[in-house]
Formats: sequence, C-alpha cells, structure tokens
Amino acid sequence: MTRYKAVFAYDGSGFVGYQVQPNGRTVQEEIEKALKKMHKGDFSRITASGRTDTGVHAVGQVIHFDSPLNIEPEKFRIALQMGTPRDISFHSVEKVADDFHARFDVTGKEYRYMIDRSKIFNPFKRNFALHFPYQLNVEKMKSAAKLLIGEHDFTSFCSARAVQESKVRTIYQIEITEVDETTLMIAYRGSGFLYNMVRILTGVLLDVGQNKLGEPDILRAFEARNRESLRSKTAPPEGLYLQEVFYK
Amino acid sequence: MTRYKAVFAYDGSGFVGYQVQPNGRTVQEEIEKALKKMHKGDFSRITASGRTDTGVHAVGQVIHFDSPLNIEPEKFRIALQMGTPRDISFHSVEKVADDFHARFDVTGKEYRYMIDRSKIFNPFKRNFALHFPYQLNVEKMKSAAKLLIGEHDFTSFCSARAVQESKVRTIYQIEITEVDETTLMIAYRGSGFLYNMVRILTGVLLDVGQNKLGEPDILRAFEARNRESLRSKTAPPEGLYLQEVFYK
Repeated sequence: MTRYKAVFAYDGSGFVGYQVQPNGRTVQEEIEKALKKMHKGDFSRITASGRTDTGVHAVGQVIHFDSPLNIEPEKFRIALQMGTPRDISFHSVEKVADDFHARFDVTGKEYRYMIDRSKIFNPFKRNFALHFPYQLNVEKMKSAAKLLIGEHDFTSFCSARAVQESKVRTIYQIEITEVDETTLMIAYRGSGFLYNMVRILTGVLLDVGQNKLGEPDILRAFEARNRESLRSKTAPPEGLYLQEVFYK
Repeated sequence: MTRYKAVFAYDGSGFVGYQVQPNGRTVQEEIEKALKKMHKGDFSRITASGRTDTGVHAVGQVIHFDSPLNIEPEKFRIALQMGTPRDISFHSVEKVADDFHARFDVTGKEYRYMIDRSKIFNPFKRNFALHFPYQLNVEKMKSAAKLLIGEHDFTSFCSARAVQESKVRTIYQIEITEVDETTLMIAYRGSGFLYNMVRILTGVLLDVGQNKLGEPDILRAFEARNRESLRSKTAPPEGLYLQEVFYK
C-alpha cells in the first residue's frame, strides 16, 4: 500500500458540505466515488484535514488515503481531476510516509472570508462573498483584530455545538485587506479553529466596523466563555474559504 | 403610461438564455414575473437590446417597458431587485422618452470574453471563463485582431443560423488584455454582432494564438463569405459577457 496526500479546491455552493451525509451531495462522496472507480470497486475511505459546512469553499483542502496502486503522482492527480465533477479541482498529489495523517498532523490552517462591499448586489459573487453594502470602519476592525490574536479560550466565539473539550486555540495572524475598491478580505491563520469560529469572528469584526461592538465587548466575551455573551451574527457560509492547511 | 429603461446584470449559468422559451428558466421570464406582481397581474412584455444564449452572462443588459406606475426610478430599481432572483441584479432604472426603444436605438455594443489560462482548472471560474491552459502567442492575437476591426462582411464569422440579411457589421475596437497572470480578456466593441459572432471571433483569435491559423486565413475567410471556410471552433458560452449597450 502507498499513502498519498492530495490538495484540492472546491466550489462549496453545490455541496451540502465536505463530509458524507445521508442527504445531499458532498465533496468526500464525489472523491471516494472517483477512487472507487479507479480501484475497480475496492476502495474504502479518504481522510481530510477537517470538514467544511454547506456552501463553504476550499482552495487548499487536504486528504490522505492508501492505495495498492503505485502511480506517478501527477498521473494520479490527472486521474482524480478527470474522475471528479467540475466543482472539484486537484492541485497536487504526492506520495507520503505511511504515518502521515491529514487531520492529526495539521499544525495550522488559514481561512479567508470575502466581503463584497459593492453598493449594488453583484450576481456573479452571490455564492462567493458576503454582500455587505454598509459603512465599515476598517481601521477599527484592524485594531480589534489584534485583540483576537494569540492564545485564548474561544468558547464565546464558536458554535455552542462545538464538540471539542478544550476551546483554547491560538490565532497567529488576522490580516484585513482591501483587495480592490469593493472587496474586503479577512485572512485568519491559527493553530486550529472551532466549529463556526471563523464565521463568528467575522460577524464580530463586522459589528466592530459598524460601531455596534467595541473592544471592551470582545474582552468581556473572552471572560464570559459563552456564545450568548455576543449578539453578533454568524457570517454566512458563502464568503468562507479554507485557504491552506499547514503540516510540519 | 411612463416608459422606463433598466440596466441589469445576470449570471447566465442558471438560465437557458435571455429570451422566454417553452423549456427552461429565462431572464426575461423572471423579470416579467416580477413586473406582473408589481402591476397586480396587469403587465405584458419587456423589450431587450437583444438576446443572449444559454450560459452567456450580462453585466449591462438593457430593457425598456411601459408602466402606468409613476415611481421614483431608484425605488423602481429596488423593487425590481427585490422581486427577481439573486442571479439577476439591477444597476439602474430611469424614465425615458416614449419613443425610446431598447433594441432599435442601439448604436453599439461591447462584449467581453474571459479566458482562464491557469494550468490547473479553477472550479470557481468554471461558469465564468473558458479554461484554456495551452500556450498562446498574445502578440499574434493582437496583430490579427487589427484585421477584424472596421466594416466587413462577417458571413464567415457568424453562425449559419444567423437570420439577418446583411452580414455587414463594423467592429470599432478589439482590446486584448492580460488582466492578471492567468486571465486574458478580449473586449469587442462594434455597431452590432451577428449570431455567435463574438464566440467565433474568439475561437479564431485562439487559433491564431496557437499558430493554427494565420492572418492570410482570416483574409481568405472574409472573401469566402462562408462559415465553413474556417475550422475554428465556436468558443463556449461561459466566457462571454454582454458588457454594455450604447445608445445615442
């Protein structure tokens, strides 16, 4: 058996998320279907760095899987590219050590959140960015983002449904960039992110940019350790991208 | 009755084209449905600058229609925006003279064709650009484009199904721009365009960029007045945008 690592992108708008589910089309199922075909039915599972929700995109999702086939990696990439639908695209396939694990070996991740500030709704971006035509004080957002960086208990900044026992995570960097006149990008790099954490952080930063929340509210929320302590809405999935997964 | 002119964009990927058809969802039908609701059922037709095919997009399509409602144009725009699905978006509504005609008064149009030259397929662009990962000599394309500019009989450069009697049209400008490392844009401005003409011209320019066609072939095709005289493929619809419609 050879262990392979693959990096791929997907447009999340046509999926009910990454992970196989009884109802609806998923990314995992499409990739496993392609691998099953390549292995004449004899293929079981792929393991990803983590899940993404319905409508959430990936630029650099990572999986590993084992295969009895010993194929040149670029040929394997092309076979996966051909075998999967056009809303999934494989960047690279490589052979890795037998003990490489796409989830357990993750040392960090980068997520990006795209915001379309056009006054008039852009139909070409409807699945790819949050439309947010309101005033935003970007400087205030940048300042508040600094409070979020570092090691914190993010209980107030994740879904109450987050299953992990420890809610302590480290954010290495939050970059807020005005990509062009109408596009704001918030890039988050961290050791790991809890369920809905990036979308909640984005909702908080948007509230700060609209003067609905101030830095003291963020400090209080860290103390409170309770999602209810912040009224900020969870930003919708269409603006969110799993940009990159980091390994040792 | 007041005559209104409206400018709007649409993502063509979810439509079987602009014009109402027995089978499939169309842009015209969605807008007429919205207007019918606003007029309590008493509304008949809108008139567009022209049709677009299945999968073709518009950034600045134009319609006119008559309404007994005398509404402030920006309010009318918002009502149309709210009444139509998210793949249509209204830029502007204005009151115009009773004899303004969205089709007959057109003095020119701009179409754009987007080409994604990324080596690896980009799933986010699959409905919005032609994926073309092959070598292209852009300088040769620019040079050949100059031959197409001016008044010509474009019989060889339109679908055999083009219904207009005269195939003489004037192209004012063809601009080929490397928007970024992987995106090539071809913008065509002209007095008017025949059926499939922009997609066929794009196919010809791509063949020139690949050294499959030379400038003499283009000159011969002008002479031949026959679509069969050129083997170039019609570029697919997903790269095409009706960018702007010009009036006096």
